[in-house]
Amino acid sequence: MSDIDARLAELGLTLPEAPAPAANYVPFVQTGNLVFVSGQISQGPDGLILGKLGADMEVEAGAKAAAACALGLLAQVKAACGGDLSKLKRVVKLTGFVNSTLEFTDQPKVINGASDLLVAVLGDAGRHSRSAVSAASLPMGVAVEIEGIFEIA
Amino acid sequence: MSDIDARLAELGLTLPEAPAPAANYVPFVQTGNLVFVSGQISQGPDGLILGKLGADMEVEAGAKAAAACALGLLAQVKAACGGDLSKLKRVVKLTGFVNSTLEFTDQPKVINGASDLLVAVLGDAGRHSRSAVSAASLPMGVAVEIEGIFEIA
Amino acid sequence: MSDIDARLAELGLTLPEAPAPAANYVPFVQTGNLVFVSGQISQGPDGLILGKLGADMEVEAGAKAAAACALGLLAQVKAACGGDLSKLKRVVKLTGFVNSTLEFTDQPKVINGASDLLVAVLGDAGRHSRSAVSAASLPMGVAVEIEGIFEIA
Repeated sequence: MSDIDARLAELGLTLPEAPAPAANYVPFVQTGNLVFVSGQISQGPDGLILGKLGADMEVEAGAKAAAACALGLLAQVKAACGGDLSKLKRVVKLTGFVNSTLEFTDQPKVINGASDLLVAVLGDAGRHSRSAVSAASLPMGVAVEIEGIFEIA
Repeated sequence: MSDIDARLAELGLTLPEAPAPAANYVPFVQTGNLVFVSGQISQGPDGLILGKLGADMEVEAGAKAAAACALGLLAQVKAACGGDLSKLKRVVKLTGFVNSTLEFTDQPKVINGASDLLVAVLGDAGRHSRSAVSAASLPMGVAVEIEGIFEIA
Repeated sequence: MSDIDARLAELGLTLPEAPAPAANYVPFVQTGNLVFVSGQISQGPDGLILGKLGADMEVEAGAKAAAACALGLLAQVKAACGGDLSKLKRVVKLTGFVNSTLEFTDQPKVINGASDLLVAVLGDAGRHSRSAVSAASLPMGVAVEIEGIFEIA
């Protein structure tokens, strides 16, 4: 078990399964030492986390949805590392899409849910560049979708 | 003619011209062996493919618009390869933006139009990581815009 | 002072401070010779540049907001270069998000404000691949957010 797995356990976090999408795309692609991970939609043990910020979901709940996306990203990166998260050198970039109304303005607070989780788990290696914007809507009505670029050894 | 050109012909597909944008940006930039291709808007031999999913366009028509974007990406990658698509190693990443209402939830089915075309043409080299989200609107009112990252030899 | 700093001065442009975001993400991450810069929101010496294209802001004002984002990107790249912009080899990619209504269709004209500034300052090294799309909304209600990928020596 890597230090990162130990840290996940210490934080009481469990990585979800890293399912392959049911289509002609894949969860991640490695090129050189960069891993591009497909957009992870917000979902947890109880299923999809649905919502539209500014309408039927509060910022705090949105941040939890973003944290769920971050766990999905970590699960995919672990798969990309052949199960050994100690090969992860750093998180390079996140792009966070928030399902929101046309008036919502707290995208950064929502996506902080993902950023905070990654730094809690990975320390400085979890610090990343980032964009946080609103999407007019998201697949199946999920609250958040986040894609990521990671550097691995 | 590369195997890929032969496969395009076999599928009855014709790559569009790869026009340079009329502005201070370019259709693609190569850095190392990665090619970043500018967002390709949905257009075909008859002009722009306009529409807003959830309002005036069905999912199936949206998927065809996405396939048109994929042809545009391939045309630009071919130009990046100096005309020789056999230099294309794989599709790394697509980001698909769907012009939709605030309630639309079938972004993946729309962008599958592009994913399916790339795998039909390129086989396993066409499998890619991907995000599919809605944009509040898109240039000139097109239905879909897709950008891509490609690895070339 | 690099040639680029001289060119900025000649154009009467001043780079803003390159502030670190107040969260668990960072303004930029370098991996290999690529620098991924976080989404820069439109702001100037007088504060945030707010607006929604198609509702309360004209295209020309939107283009100025985009140019402000481009200055923010350059400021971050300068920091990534340790203050020496002569290390910047080229702009690889911009993704421009326009805060707009569901009917707005001039995203490219808005983001041209950033593209034109980069080419005015950097010449051919400023030419980049690009996507221009609408976001349903943006942080704090800013008019434009642009992220970038840069190649440095």
